[in-house]
Amino acid sequence: MALYFIGIGLNDEKDITVKGLEAVKKCDAVYLENYTSVLQVPVKKLEQLYGKKIMLADRELVEKKAEATILKDAKEKNTAFLVIGDSLCATTHIDLMLRAEKENIPVEVIHNASVISAIGITGLEVYKFGKTTSIPFENKNVKTPVEVFRMNKKNGLHTLFLLDLNPEKNKFMNIKQAVEYLVSNGVSEKEMFIGCARIGSEKPIIHKGKSKEIIKKDFGSPPYCLIIPGNLHFIEEQALS
Amino acid sequence: MALYFIGIGLNDEKDITVKGLEAVKKCDAVYLENYTSVLQVPVKKLEQLYGKKIMLADRELVEKKAEATILKDAKEKNTAFLVIGDSLCATTHIDLMLRAEKENIPVEVIHNASVISAIGITGLEVYKFGKTTSIPFENKNVKTPVEVFRMNKKNGLHTLFLLDLNPEKNKFMNIKQAVEYLVSNGVSEKEMFIGCARIGSEKPIIHKGKSKEIIKKDFGSPPYCLIIPGNLHFIEEQALS
Repeated sequence: MALYFIGIGLNDEKDITVKGLEAVKKCDAVYLENYTSVLQVPVKKLEQLYGKKIMLADRELVEKKAEATILKDAKEKNTAFLVIGDSLCATTHIDLMLRAEKENIPVEVIHNASVISAIGITGLEVYKFGKTTSIPFENKNVKTPVEVFRMNKKNGLHTLFLLDLNPEKNKFMNIKQAVEYLVSNGVSEKEMFIGCARIGSEKPIIHKGKSKEIIKKDFGSPPYCLIIPGNLHFIEEQALS
Repeated sequence: MALYFIGIGLNDEKDITVKGLEAVKKCDAVYLENYTSVLQVPVKKLEQLYGKKIMLADRELVEKKAEATILKDAKEKNTAFLVIGDSLCATTHIDLMLRAEKENIPVEVIHNASVISAIGITGLEVYKFGKTTSIPFENKNVKTPVEVFRMNKKNGLHTLFLLDLNPEKNKFMNIKQAVEYLVSNGVSEKEMFIGCARIGSEKPIIHKGKSKEIIKKDFGSPPYCLIIPGNLHFIEEQALS
């Protein structure tokens, strides 16, 4: 009996690894964490590939009710905890792993692509990003994203902004909202903003421009993220243009 | 005809995604980039799973001879360029993608796990890492890794050091060499060093300690990386201990 943390990648049901697929097929309880990100396919597609019924795990279940659900299951049977992207990027997943280990449940981790490396598709070097930051929906008095950006920029580094989302309510902060938040908090309109949609899919959309240009672009469906680059290497400039 | 950039993950043949496996099976020429990282299994294991013969691509082939090999093949037949980790993390891969696009070769990118997100298994939050840096073998007058560390530390951020490797010559910088390089260039012996081996595998080895403790630890086989954390969140401290 074990708890498998399985990253399922960024786009669709086929982004799971061969190892991840073998693990989920061995499991008798399968949870999908569905509050920190979103795939481009309905859950049914995953169920068809895995041959398993999937239980959706919202924040309340993972953070407050895991003892009676995920951890209880993992003591009795092989249990999968599916995470969109990589398996241990967020504190909420690390915390669940620690709680499992505290209860002596064997844990196995199967990794997958995360937006923080997939962002390489923009042509920006992933090793030249500074701290990642998130822009929340409720951001009236929130200054952290701007502070993180200023720190990174000062050091010549790129900044990745993750944009808030609530998949259950089908609510996603879009590029326009994010750019307007940043500009209204003092980020120059003349920065190069790089808006991205569906990073990790075969057809991501990437547009760059000053704030007035970027907010007019159509990015299609979520999820979205935003980048403001720091100093650009020659190859990075070429790739962006 | 297309050139597929396929990330194959960090550990063994089964870390390829279902999508990546389907793509490589469609290809009539398969290259494996084997100079920026290393897997835990021989190439033969990959060949067995894919049902394809693999050509090894060293730096010279990718950076200087791609026109006569990879790009030539990709014009005539479906061609796979396999990358350990994620597909576009390094400048050398972005550059190959740009050259393919310049020659009007359709490019498809299939992502996978990278050490920069898999490092979450240490319990450190991946979003709290600053710039990533590399320690080269020839480092007598090299100061960049220490400068990057100081910048990150000042900002409370974690630093990931990638350690040089030459898989063709079976040469890998180890944790001891990396720690000694840092300490001899002014990093305090009292920092918490977190040494990691085989991140992304089912049994990674992670040890932490001051320089004198960490250099005595046995990490087993490569690849290795090293972390010096910045400010630690409560959950991160718990996870590390």
